[in-house]
Amino acid sequence: MKKHSKYYRRGKRDETLILPANDSISATLDTDHLCAKTTVMISPNFKHDRIWLNGREEDIKNIRLQNCLTEIKKRAGNSNHMDQWKIHICSENNFPTSAGLASSAAGYACLVIALAKLYEIKGDITTIARVGSGSACRSILGGFVRWYMGSQTDGTDSIAKQIVPASYWPEMRILILVVNEAKKNVSSAIGMRRGMETSDFLNFRVKHIVPDRVKSIEQAILQKDFKTFAEQTMKDSNQMHAACLDTYPPCVYMNDISHAIVDLIHAYNETVKEVKVAYTFDAGPNATLYLLEENVTEFLGVLDYFFPPTTNLEEYRKGLPVKKVVHSLELFNNINIRKQAPGCFKYIIYTKISDGPKYLNDSKDHLLNKEGLPILIKDYP
Amino acid sequence: MKKHSKYYRRGKRDETLILPANDSISATLDTDHLCAKTTVMISPNFKHDRIWLNGREEDIKNIRLQNCLTEIKKRAGNSNHMDQWKIHICSENNFPTSAGLASSAAGYACLVIALAKLYEIKGDITTIARVGSGSACRSILGGFVRWYMGSQTDGTDSIAKQIVPASYWPEMRILILVVNEAKKNVSSAIGMRRGMETSDFLNFRVKHIVPDRVKSIEQAILQKDFKTFAEQTMKDSNQMHAACLDTYPPCVYMNDISHAIVDLIHAYNETVKEVKVAYTFDAGPNATLYLLEENVTEFLGVLDYFFPPTTNLEEYRKGLPVKKVVHSLELFNNINIRKQAPGCFKYIIYTKISDGPKYLNDSKDHLLNKEGLPILIKDYP
Repeated sequence: MKKHSKYYRRGKRDETLILPANDSISATLDTDHLCAKTTVMISPNFKHDRIWLNGREEDIKNIRLQNCLTEIKKRAGNSNHMDQWKIHICSENNFPTSAGLASSAAGYACLVIALAKLYEIKGDITTIARVGSGSACRSILGGFVRWYMGSQTDGTDSIAKQIVPASYWPEMRILILVVNEAKKNVSSAIGMRRGMETSDFLNFRVKHIVPDRVKSIEQAILQKDFKTFAEQTMKDSNQMHAACLDTYPPCVYMNDISHAIVDLIHAYNETVKEVKVAYTFDAGPNATLYLLEENVTEFLGVLDYFFPPTTNLEEYRKGLPVKKVVHSLELFNNINIRKQAPGCFKYIIYTKISDGPKYLNDSKDHLLNKEGLPILIKDYP
Repeated sequence: MKKHSKYYRRGKRDETLILPANDSISATLDTDHLCAKTTVMISPNFKHDRIWLNGREEDIKNIRLQNCLTEIKKRAGNSNHMDQWKIHICSENNFPTSAGLASSAAGYACLVIALAKLYEIKGDITTIARVGSGSACRSILGGFVRWYMGSQTDGTDSIAKQIVPASYWPEMRILILVVNEAKKNVSSAIGMRRGMETSDFLNFRVKHIVPDRVKSIEQAILQKDFKTFAEQTMKDSNQMHAACLDTYPPCVYMNDISHAIVDLIHAYNETVKEVKVAYTFDAGPNATLYLLEENVTEFLGVLDYFFPPTTNLEEYRKGLPVKKVVHSLELFNNINIRKQAPGCFKYIIYTKISDGPKYLNDSKDHLLNKEGLPILIKDYP
């Protein structure tokens, strides 16, 4: 039901339980623009457990999915033997998968929320989402969220907690720049494992840098201190990718376009003599930018100037409506970087932070029909 | 008179004396293929000190140049008042400057060797070259060279010493892949300063990683252990660039083509089940590859297949002559990476390690005429 943009990444200390090597913080984005949607259904008439993702049946034996289902059933107890009934799951994303947009975090968060409702599970469910996809535990909650690494070997204290709800910092906006490029080379799970095994930097970072940084960014959020929030976010993104490069063989997720975005943000902030925009990069070339609403029209003018779109703006700008962008040649000329060739981005998504998963009660939202089979209602991206 | 390829880079602890934050090792490349050539001349008739670089007169007041001249004259004493005579300097490279090929290291090493001969200076002169351009101190010597960071604040013990001469490991070969791209954005001097000020990783690296790595690579050279030499070289290159990325704002020297070369080398070594080639990157996108002579024809076949040249091979392959390359479709098909579009490299230079600076006694090699003015004899790259 939702989507997270991480700005603290982690290596893992346990790969089955998905226990991270450090705390992390994320923001939950608006489900109107980036979300997973999931219907779950149980029935004594179903013969097997089954799952459909984005219109295609997938293997229900997937180990992470099974871990989630096992945890759920453990917590459900066995009143009415409902836990013996077979389950059908149908899920879809309204954004591309495997493009570095954290589709599995959104997917598992949505699945676990739906299962918890079905089996009437009370109490913390972030630990259940975590065993599906680590960062999904944060996506269970809205606003700004902190994932505590915990210290128990069974992972029971590796849980996510909300820092503040979305309404606490209503001016915060997000721009996602989807780079026109093939999917990532090395999966983030493989990259993280290799990093923990081979990177001196990653091991140094999780012990000596991230603990203070998490504190400082949490503080910045509580104080709505955009400058600190932005600088810490950018430094952490750079350092995470530096640790990936220090991995052997190296894992490289950012590309020339990603680095050109970084250059633009630094040159722009320097020109306007204020930290107005922050970047962060996940396990792919796409950029996630944080900025306050008052700066969006000015920055979008700058972005369109240095990274000219090729498609029509209606297709190119997704998400929230954008007021007329500011076209200031004086500003553009003062930003000392090179213009890029047109068409660097497939599209951009303009969105905000939201309150997270929503329960959809209307039967027209259901993805399974009465027989428990998928109702195909749209083309998948 | 020569050119170095560094595989240990450094931050600096003193920028005027150019004292590094760690030891480093380099190999001195063959002056037939990559070199600076310098003529120095003093005369009681000259009115001013003057310098010409690659055919153009430059500012003699350049601070680093002045530092070198001051050190030289200090060491020269004042017999015959020759140190009062004005000096004319003329220098040229046979390879592009500011392209990440260490032209200033070659240039200052050559200048200091020439000046030392002129003023009959005895003893170590690597410290004099160092105040011109840090890495020039290594380029004074041939073979494999170690630059000791030293501990004195005046830099007198920050000197270079030869590990072994070129003849010690005669099978070693070098391939330089000159990437078809504009010159670097951030100079390595500025990048290093910013790194020492802002990068947690760089500070961690110089204290806790580089000392052991320098020992291990020196050992590998002494034992002619190519595997260890190669792996340590690659890890160090990656880590150095990781520290640059961790600098704030980040310094990025490698580009998509550089990373594609890295991917090719790892995929190739994995396919042939042996570490046959190592890469290292300096402050630019160009790759320097180390490999043994016996593997050159096989690897060049692989390189040409995955990075097809566009220009004719005579222009494309510079340096040592290459025997017929091996075109093995079976090998190519087993290397699991994507072929690049043609024309990634402007040219490649195939060379070896050499004994360093040479004194050119033939008057036809002189760059200044009897009046002390440049003899322009060729087009500069």
